[in-house]
Amino acid sequence: MRGLWLEEKRLSFRDDLAGPPAADGEALVLVRLAGICGTDLELVRGYYPFTGVPGHEFVGTVEQAPSAPEWIGRRVVGEINAACGACATCRSGRRTHCPARTVLGIRGRAGAFAERLTLPIANLHEVPETVPDEEAVFTEPLAAALQIQAQVPLRADQRVLVLGAGRLGTLVARTLVRTGARVRVAARLAARREQLRAAGVDAVAPDDVAPASADVVVDCTGHPEGFARARAAVRPRGTIVLKSTYAGEAPVNLSSVVVDEITVVGSRCGAFAPALELLAARVVPVRDLVEARFPFARGTEAFEEAARPGALKVLLEP
Amino acid sequence: MRGLWLEEKRLSFRDDLAGPPAADGEALVLVRLAGICGTDLELVRGYYPFTGVPGHEFVGTVEQAPSAPEWIGRRVVGEINAACGACATCRSGRRTHCPARTVLGIRGRAGAFAERLTLPIANLHEVPETVPDEEAVFTEPLAAALQIQAQVPLRADQRVLVLGAGRLGTLVARTLVRTGARVRVAARLAARREQLRAAGVDAVAPDDVAPASADVVVDCTGHPEGFARARAAVRPRGTIVLKSTYAGEAPVNLSSVVVDEITVVGSRCGAFAPALELLAARVVPVRDLVEARFPFARGTEAFEEAARPGALKVLLEP
Repeated sequence: MRGLWLEEKRLSFRDDLAGPPAADGEALVLVRLAGICGTDLELVRGYYPFTGVPGHEFVGTVEQAPSAPEWIGRRVVGEINAACGACATCRSGRRTHCPARTVLGIRGRAGAFAERLTLPIANLHEVPETVPDEEAVFTEPLAAALQIQAQVPLRADQRVLVLGAGRLGTLVARTLVRTGARVRVAARLAARREQLRAAGVDAVAPDDVAPASADVVVDCTGHPEGFARARAAVRPRGTIVLKSTYAGEAPVNLSSVVVDEITVVGSRCGAFAPALELLAARVVPVRDLVEARFPFARGTEAFEEAARPGALKVLLEP
Repeated sequence: MRGLWLEEKRLSFRDDLAGPPAADGEALVLVRLAGICGTDLELVRGYYPFTGVPGHEFVGTVEQAPSAPEWIGRRVVGEINAACGACATCRSGRRTHCPARTVLGIRGRAGAFAERLTLPIANLHEVPETVPDEEAVFTEPLAAALQIQAQVPLRADQRVLVLGAGRLGTLVARTLVRTGARVRVAARLAARREQLRAAGVDAVAPDDVAPASADVVVDCTGHPEGFARARAAVRPRGTIVLKSTYAGEAPVNLSSVVVDEITVVGSRCGAFAPALELLAARVVPVRDLVEARFPFARGTEAFEEAARPGALKVLLEP
């Protein structure tokens, strides 16, 4: 089959990929549309030693499902962590942290930047008819954005600062404004700030953020410098939510975290059902975030486009 | 007056110190006994550019209190942050984080390693008669230990690992066992592990801590390496509580904090009233933690003793 292949930090298009084998309880899914995420770019930079087909944001159609044939033909999105279901972590309800898990296009499982992928039936969610592919493909990042609210209780009087107005930062801001909190986005590009303001979201240049001025800061910069910016912007006893994954370590003044009693919360994947509900209710716009669409055959070009500073969502299709 | 003086990372005994001036609403306190804390050692190493009399753990007797003469003659301990009371941070209830605060022996206010100190009357707590000086002097570090429970809800079934069995780690362990949580202490010295076990606290060598085996890890090591150890020991979606302050930055793999959705909580000073209650009720032993007692005149020797690996509490007296 056709798709993208990552090996030793090199991404290439191939038309000789073997179709992924579907294990017991799994479905074979025909990919309709997939999205490039910051984590995909970091995988190419060597953030995690993954060899295989990358990609974890997708919408597709179930082609085979031996153990649950009623799924065949359904249009689906899929949660990306395939857990063992049997270990202590799974049994305690933290399935997305199962130590034996595979992760679609990230760890031990071929991903969505190819014609077909496999996932456990339990991971699939049928997409409501009213949600077109171009919006359904945002389910995974939207769920990741909603995870912030699942982890950190937000009140209407809180000042929330989102660092970064890229793919994830924009989604995070759009979901957080729905909590009633006073959301502000620090965006480097003037044009992006204009767009945000036009959509009713307060936006500011990063250098104009006053020290200790936010109760909660969400780092969506995707860069190690994000932490220092977040640290400067958060007030004592405030909370920093980390959404960025990248290769390497960041120097952190941990003593200042102690003295100011800061809480730092790592935040990753979220539940798909609430994200799909928001998309079906059309209350969080996503379509305007699509910047470009490429066929798999032009995948490396698509990655270059997605890596451009300020780039929004770049989609890939068979 | 006599006392210790810190200037450009050099500590010296002096007998020509000026008595500290008591501002409106403040008391002049005659120091009876003071304790050396890890922060004092770090101040000497240059953790924070403080020039003056260090020391913030003390018990003393009120000598002057112009605005509240009823306090004269009372035996007291004192909360170390002197807040302005008027700014937005103070009005929101976070007085210990007042940006204009002075901190006894740490920031803008002469400390307890001298014959006299000053503090606002509002910071003072009278010591119950049944609590001797040698125990009352532990009020501040005991309050700091109790702050962990005030910030992080602990359940009886949780596995809590305390890293470090020094002055603070031991107090932290002794307060945490009272929550009913399954507390374990990682201690480098075999003798310290024996002591802990004899007191009914589970103890283990640091290298014998299994990865991802704790729900909550409290770093009381006082060293930058503490974070990496805590990170390895905590389970996904677990909590790391930071109690250590030291000079410099630590390299942190923030992406792993995101992927494992770890929460990191900086924890500093706590409320004195609950600590004094515990001391009065004699439910948290502290006296056995006293390792040595020195007069101010032998203060530099006392600091050397306190800096010895595995040292417990070293006290200073006029």
